[in-house]
Amino acid sequence: MSKAATKKAPKTNNKVDIVSNGTMNGASKREVPPTVTLRNKPGRMVYYFGKTQVEGDATMKSVLGGKGANLADMTSIGLPVPPGFTITTETCAAYYKAGMRLPHGLMNEVHKNVAILEKETGKKFGDPANPLLVSVRSGAAVSMPGMMDTILNLGLNDIAADGMASITKNPRFAYDAYRRLINMFGDVVRGVDHHHFEDVFNRIKAKYKATIDTDVPAEGMKELCDEYKKVYKKYTSEEFPQNPFKQLELAIEAVFKSWNSQRAIDYRRLQSIQGLTGTAVNIQTMVYGNTGEESGTGVAFTRNPATGENDFYGEFLVNAQGEDVVAGIRTPQPVAMMGQWNKSAHQQLLKIRGILEKHYKDMQDIEFTVERGTLYMLQTRTGKRTGPAAVRIACDMVKEKLIDEKQALLRIPAADLRQLMLPSFDPVKKKLAEVVARGLPASFGAAVGTPVFTAEEAVDRARKGDSVILVREFTSPEDVAGMHSAAGILTSTGGTTSHAAVVALGWGKCCVVGASALTIDAKAGTIKIGKLTIGRKDVISIDGGTGEVMMGSVPTTEPKLSGDFSQVMKWSDKYRKIGIRTNADTPNDAQRARDFGAEGIGLCRTEHMFFEGDRIKPMRQMILAETREDREKALKKLLPFQRDDFIGIFKAMKGLPVTIRLIDPPLHEFLPHDDKGQKEMAQLLNVSVDKVKQRVNQLHEGNPMLGHRGCRLCVTYPEILEMQVRAIVEAAIDCLRSNIKCFPEIMIPLIGFKKELEFLRAQVEATIAKVKEEEDYKPKLDIKIGTMIEVPRAAVTADEIAQHADFFSFGTNDLTQMTFGYSRDDVGGFLPDYIGKELLAVDPFQSLDTGGVGQLVQMGITKGRQTKGDLKIGICGEHGGDPKSVYFCHNVGMDYVSCSPFRVPIARLSAAQAAILAEKK
Amino acid sequence: MSKAATKKAPKTNNKVDIVSNGTMNGASKREVPPTVTLRNKPGRMVYYFGKTQVEGDATMKSVLGGKGANLADMTSIGLPVPPGFTITTETCAAYYKAGMRLPHGLMNEVHKNVAILEKETGKKFGDPANPLLVSVRSGAAVSMPGMMDTILNLGLNDIAADGMASITKNPRFAYDAYRRLINMFGDVVRGVDHHHFEDVFNRIKAKYKATIDTDVPAEGMKELCDEYKKVYKKYTSEEFPQNPFKQLELAIEAVFKSWNSQRAIDYRRLQSIQGLTGTAVNIQTMVYGNTGEESGTGVAFTRNPATGENDFYGEFLVNAQGEDVVAGIRTPQPVAMMGQWNKSAHQQLLKIRGILEKHYKDMQDIEFTVERGTLYMLQTRTGKRTGPAAVRIACDMVKEKLIDEKQALLRIPAADLRQLMLPSFDPVKKKLAEVVARGLPASFGAAVGTPVFTAEEAVDRARKGDSVILVREFTSPEDVAGMHSAAGILTSTGGTTSHAAVVALGWGKCCVVGASALTIDAKAGTIKIGKLTIGRKDVISIDGGTGEVMMGSVPTTEPKLSGDFSQVMKWSDKYRKIGIRTNADTPNDAQRARDFGAEGIGLCRTEHMFFEGDRIKPMRQMILAETREDREKALKKLLPFQRDDFIGIFKAMKGLPVTIRLIDPPLHEFLPHDDKGQKEMAQLLNVSVDKVKQRVNQLHEGNPMLGHRGCRLCVTYPEILEMQVRAIVEAAIDCLRSNIKCFPEIMIPLIGFKKELEFLRAQVEATIAKVKEEEDYKPKLDIKIGTMIEVPRAAVTADEIAQHADFFSFGTNDLTQMTFGYSRDDVGGFLPDYIGKELLAVDPFQSLDTGGVGQLVQMGITKGRQTKGDLKIGICGEHGGDPKSVYFCHNVGMDYVSCSPFRVPIARLSAAQAAILAEKK
Repeated sequence: MSKAATKKAPKTNNKVDIVSNGTMNGASKREVPPTVTLRNKPGRMVYYFGKTQVEGDATMKSVLGGKGANLADMTSIGLPVPPGFTITTETCAAYYKAGMRLPHGLMNEVHKNVAILEKETGKKFGDPANPLLVSVRSGAAVSMPGMMDTILNLGLNDIAADGMASITKNPRFAYDAYRRLINMFGDVVRGVDHHHFEDVFNRIKAKYKATIDTDVPAEGMKELCDEYKKVYKKYTSEEFPQNPFKQLELAIEAVFKSWNSQRAIDYRRLQSIQGLTGTAVNIQTMVYGNTGEESGTGVAFTRNPATGENDFYGEFLVNAQGEDVVAGIRTPQPVAMMGQWNKSAHQQLLKIRGILEKHYKDMQDIEFTVERGTLYMLQTRTGKRTGPAAVRIACDMVKEKLIDEKQALLRIPAADLRQLMLPSFDPVKKKLAEVVARGLPASFGAAVGTPVFTAEEAVDRARKGDSVILVREFTSPEDVAGMHSAAGILTSTGGTTSHAAVVALGWGKCCVVGASALTIDAKAGTIKIGKLTIGRKDVISIDGGTGEVMMGSVPTTEPKLSGDFSQVMKWSDKYRKIGIRTNADTPNDAQRARDFGAEGIGLCRTEHMFFEGDRIKPMRQMILAETREDREKALKKLLPFQRDDFIGIFKAMKGLPVTIRLIDPPLHEFLPHDDKGQKEMAQLLNVSVDKVKQRVNQLHEGNPMLGHRGCRLCVTYPEILEMQVRAIVEAAIDCLRSNIKCFPEIMIPLIGFKKELEFLRAQVEATIAKVKEEEDYKPKLDIKIGTMIEVPRAAVTADEIAQHADFFSFGTNDLTQMTFGYSRDDVGGFLPDYIGKELLAVDPFQSLDTGGVGQLVQMGITKGRQTKGDLKIGICGEHGGDPKSVYFCHNVGMDYVSCSPFRVPIARLSAAQAAILAEKK
Repeated sequence: MSKAATKKAPKTNNKVDIVSNGTMNGASKREVPPTVTLRNKPGRMVYYFGKTQVEGDATMKSVLGGKGANLADMTSIGLPVPPGFTITTETCAAYYKAGMRLPHGLMNEVHKNVAILEKETGKKFGDPANPLLVSVRSGAAVSMPGMMDTILNLGLNDIAADGMASITKNPRFAYDAYRRLINMFGDVVRGVDHHHFEDVFNRIKAKYKATIDTDVPAEGMKELCDEYKKVYKKYTSEEFPQNPFKQLELAIEAVFKSWNSQRAIDYRRLQSIQGLTGTAVNIQTMVYGNTGEESGTGVAFTRNPATGENDFYGEFLVNAQGEDVVAGIRTPQPVAMMGQWNKSAHQQLLKIRGILEKHYKDMQDIEFTVERGTLYMLQTRTGKRTGPAAVRIACDMVKEKLIDEKQALLRIPAADLRQLMLPSFDPVKKKLAEVVARGLPASFGAAVGTPVFTAEEAVDRARKGDSVILVREFTSPEDVAGMHSAAGILTSTGGTTSHAAVVALGWGKCCVVGASALTIDAKAGTIKIGKLTIGRKDVISIDGGTGEVMMGSVPTTEPKLSGDFSQVMKWSDKYRKIGIRTNADTPNDAQRARDFGAEGIGLCRTEHMFFEGDRIKPMRQMILAETREDREKALKKLLPFQRDDFIGIFKAMKGLPVTIRLIDPPLHEFLPHDDKGQKEMAQLLNVSVDKVKQRVNQLHEGNPMLGHRGCRLCVTYPEILEMQVRAIVEAAIDCLRSNIKCFPEIMIPLIGFKKELEFLRAQVEATIAKVKEEEDYKPKLDIKIGTMIEVPRAAVTADEIAQHADFFSFGTNDLTQMTFGYSRDDVGGFLPDYIGKELLAVDPFQSLDTGGVGQLVQMGITKGRQTKGDLKIGICGEHGGDPKSVYFCHNVGMDYVSCSPFRVPIARLSAAQAAILAEKK
């Protein structure tokens, strides 16, 4: 705690040991929340930074906010930072705790620090001869850009403005600063609508025949200040405060208040930012980039944040304030051109770029200002970057010996690897798009097309060469062909593990789900969003990485895999300790997953195979059959299809293990639920429509997720199990006879207790033996038989179940559903409220709930291995491709994780990160 | 193990210490499976019983079967038992293990034991001068009456029959015995259809002009033997075996085979008999009750099994074999008349009755035969009895000092107490009824009436005075009024915790669910069962205790509560250690439960209150509302109803605690799902039908059980919680101000994690404080706030959740659903297969799954009390009224169980039994 004690500054030694960096800060915050060591003195409310003393450092982000901690840090290492002080985030918390009153003693501390600041700068608050002006800015521990309030030029009043006008001999500048303060203060502190000021400004501009702000002369600006004060008075019923300390007090309180503004709350919710205490407030001496042609301001990244190239990348604007750069009214120049304007400042900035990268050992995002030729640093923080940039920067920095391989791996947010594999929207052009709705980002990618409303329509239109977006309330296995044909999938209901999401993720197809603002009328062929109606001819764009639905065609960029990507994968494989498999149901998927580095198939769902082409017909015959004999007849027709599928997959996997799950979904999912489909089915199968309807009704369930599915089907209809096992064994023998190695693993889903597995295992074994005999195959067949652990009862009794299992695979989708009592298709009704009210940190279907579901997983592993020490254990829920969940799987001792092909690289990197992080402990 | 060593017999001392009796055998097997101590010598296959030696005893039921063990036991205590020997159940298991071959060495043992038998009886197998004849009977550890095979008169062949004819000077008797052997042997051993023999017999009867069997003279009987042998040869292609040992070997094998006959398997399934190894085979010297007018046979209970009266109760038949009594061809005489026929045999029998009751300390079911004046005992076993009889016998035996209070309590199958409280069908008259379908016995009772198909129809017809049975595919909360009006409820789907079942059980209303053979056409007003059609005017009877659906009006008997019942309840309260509460939603139910001895309400469901009368209107307004303000307006209208309900319940419970659960079901359950209902609702609420339809669609969920319900509703709509809490607090203050004590406990359902409860508890507390302030009520209000533990995640994280809970109540219905992944409304599709294939022993919704769900309950208790040592814990799923589950609740340390009013006495008795059984350990 005492490390925060006052240090003399500036230090000449740049090699300060940075505790909070060098791991996964900033860029990778989605993976590991920044762990910031609390070093502050309890109860201390204000920390000074300046030439006379620096009281904070870079490790104190949770107390000083990111901006405050880094300002202190930059001051420490001798960079030119305008001096100031920071009020802690804890003070903000105290403000709320006290019923929104500034804590006792705070303003005393502020007075003391202003006095130090006055001494250091030689200026004085409210002094017309040499007024001290400050900025008041928010700054939380995690960056929330633009979400909270800022006030500039604070300290100006009528006399200080006049004084400043005469000292600087630039009255226009002085009054411009003053009018900006009145405007901001009125807006931020007192809630005066900005357009009231705007209206007045327009009148003045008209009066002076000015087209842009800078055309207004000094006298106009002065007049504007008076007018602004009138506006202020009109809407607040009080005079604009002339006492700078009064201004400061009100501004501090306004920043505190902005912490809980609706937009700030929404932002934290959308970004899953939880657990922060409040915002810090940074009060810093103003420097001006708008005092004339010798001044300027800029923002830059120490490397290119889009590509990762080692280029100083940024922009500056002469005679401007920071907000002018962001506002985009004037076109800034590339920072490379700065030397032509002010060579020494440019040289200094390039040097600082180097110092910062060496100091922070990471790419930085900086803000600077040149005031009358003198360079000032206003901000530095770890720069956000795209996935490709993260990969390149990590690799380059290893080459530059700034970081080592492990650090490089920890630097890359594993989930961002998706961006290297799939198309994405051009980030610049996307800014101009009209976002009309937001859903859940279910499967990364960018899709542009016109809406279609049924699977058939999707197939037809795609065949004609149209790029289409399949828009549905939800999808079901019947829709699979249409989903495959579409460029993207958009649903109005469902969560990130709903049918649409899981299937799309498997294919790497862009998908947005649960866009609840959409009212879809498939008959009319329209989507309604409020008053907007989108028809079959309207082009829309959907972003599977953000969940945005946009009007029109937003340009996309195609991905390319770099050598750096291979490097990162190589390093990942070097450090990771657990295996990576994939969830794949077809030879194509299997091949793609192998290309991405999968070491086997962890989940091959067999039911998707029943939908393709002509297969659905015998499947439906089987379901309609009334006797075992008739069912067996129908199943016999399915057998060759399944066998060929397995042969294809075994061939693609070339001797890697393939875990095949027996049929899982309830039978009604294979039947059509609409009149038309039922009529067609009746005709095709030559039965009455009534019979079809009757069977559909019979199979209807109130809660199909908890119904007749999984291994329960094989208990009732052993002939289904027999056909599937036969197909697997025949395929295996066929491959082995052609000298293709294969290791099928038969996985029985939804097991709840020992006897159930014992009973079904016996049937599987009997079928294997029977087929071997029929095929006259003598060598030993290496076919493992195991189970999914996805029902809570299975986890709790895993010691018993393990007696009959060669392996366990945790089906964490279902396990999460049953452990929480959440239907993944229905969580849309309440999960947003839970996340909004911070009751849940994340959607437990996206990232494994380690505290609850994780306990059952842990219990299942411990108990299972009590019975069989070498029990092979993996995970095949979609959590297997979620970085945090992969960390968990590593930590609880799983042998492998399995995820959809496109997430295999993510899982490889995550597994390596998990191993490296575990080493550190 | 050595206790089974050979003992000298007969003993004169009747006071043998019986290990396996005196607890809960036989009569109470539904509660506690008989625990039979294994004392046999490993590998020993045959046990002898007779005057020379007795090798078994009453404790060896699992090895010798019930019959064999008791024959040995009766021999031991000096009763006149024809000597014989028993082949063990393990030998049967070995037979199956060896691929249905008699184990090596068995026939050697049989030869040895036959030799002892010949020595003891002085007769010889196949000896024409004095042939030894034996019966060969099955006998498992648990009685399976009539399910397995029996062969009598074994040892007869052509020469032995002739010899017997001349020794007994009764050729008719000898040849009658022989023809019976050929018939039985042919039927049982060789599968010759009985009617082939029947046909021949009819021919002979015609020839001798005989109308009944006994009219056929000796020569006809002899002729019949020859004819039977021909039939035997015709259908088996072999001669009837003349070697008695060959006969015996084949008969033993036939009995072993009958263990796995379809009807035996079905019987075990239906009776939930699992875990037995096989059947024993009893080979016993034949005695004959049909040698003339000095002989006879009978069956009797030592007390009246229907009423429990201390009356020797039974029947006997002169000149007859046991099967004649059972067959009912001739009318037997009451056993009380026996003295007039043979005074000494009658006296002896009465004496034996006393010896048996003293020996077994329980009512016995016996079989005896008088052969030429000499009495023989053929069987004794604990007698089955009705619920009222069990209560009376237990009380009487305490008075008679045969047993003590604790033993008496253990004697009564707790579930049978239902028979004392509810009407039941006259058991004799029910035998004549035509059973047309079978469902699951959901709620005990007998109901007779004509079918109605909608709730409205039920209300209308009942108002007109008709007794109606509400017949539905399933019921939902909308149907409650109709369910209440009906005499009984019958559904074609659902399990024993489906809506229909739970509601009916709560009311003590007869209910059969899941009668899947029924095809219900509500429009047409018909029920189809196969080819049978039942219409609105056909009377049906349903038995809620067995699940039977019968045509016509079956007479019922009304219950009456005896003084003995009160005595049993008093003893129960004396010994039980845990509290008994009830699940009650109305003042009436609350009052009834108090009358039955409930010590509080453990579950008061508040949502039923929203359906009654005019209340549904504001409820639906609330659901349709689009803003919080509009919802609050509608809720305001519901407030006075809820408040009055609570006042009524508090008054009825007179200071006992009342646990009130906040709203639980998903909102769509309150909306009509049919066009007509939606139209009516739209008119009533003055909105468009489209709006109603749209809201119904919006609220539709794929798996409502895992959807937006329980506390999730209060997270989304805090105003619902506020209204409900307000109603509770206002009601409490109202009562307290009228000097009526009340202890409301607010229970929040479906909690999954700590933050959720913390958040909602804060709202409950805030509302309590607000109402107190508004009401200006100063004294402390004692309102506990707790949660249900019904989501697996809650059990796993109970240590965290307990931080914010004053009490836990395990909702084991939902906990079972989610732990198994079984929807209680959909288990009908597969649970019968699971029970049929012995994968599950019982429906886990009926009796708590202690191995799986129980582990989570145990975990929840342990973790909860880790955090709060004195956390009050109960159960409020329907398991709270199931005896075995109550044992579990006692054993894991719950404070109370809660169940529907009619099950309160069952729970009281079960709790006492649990305490007594725990003491014994």
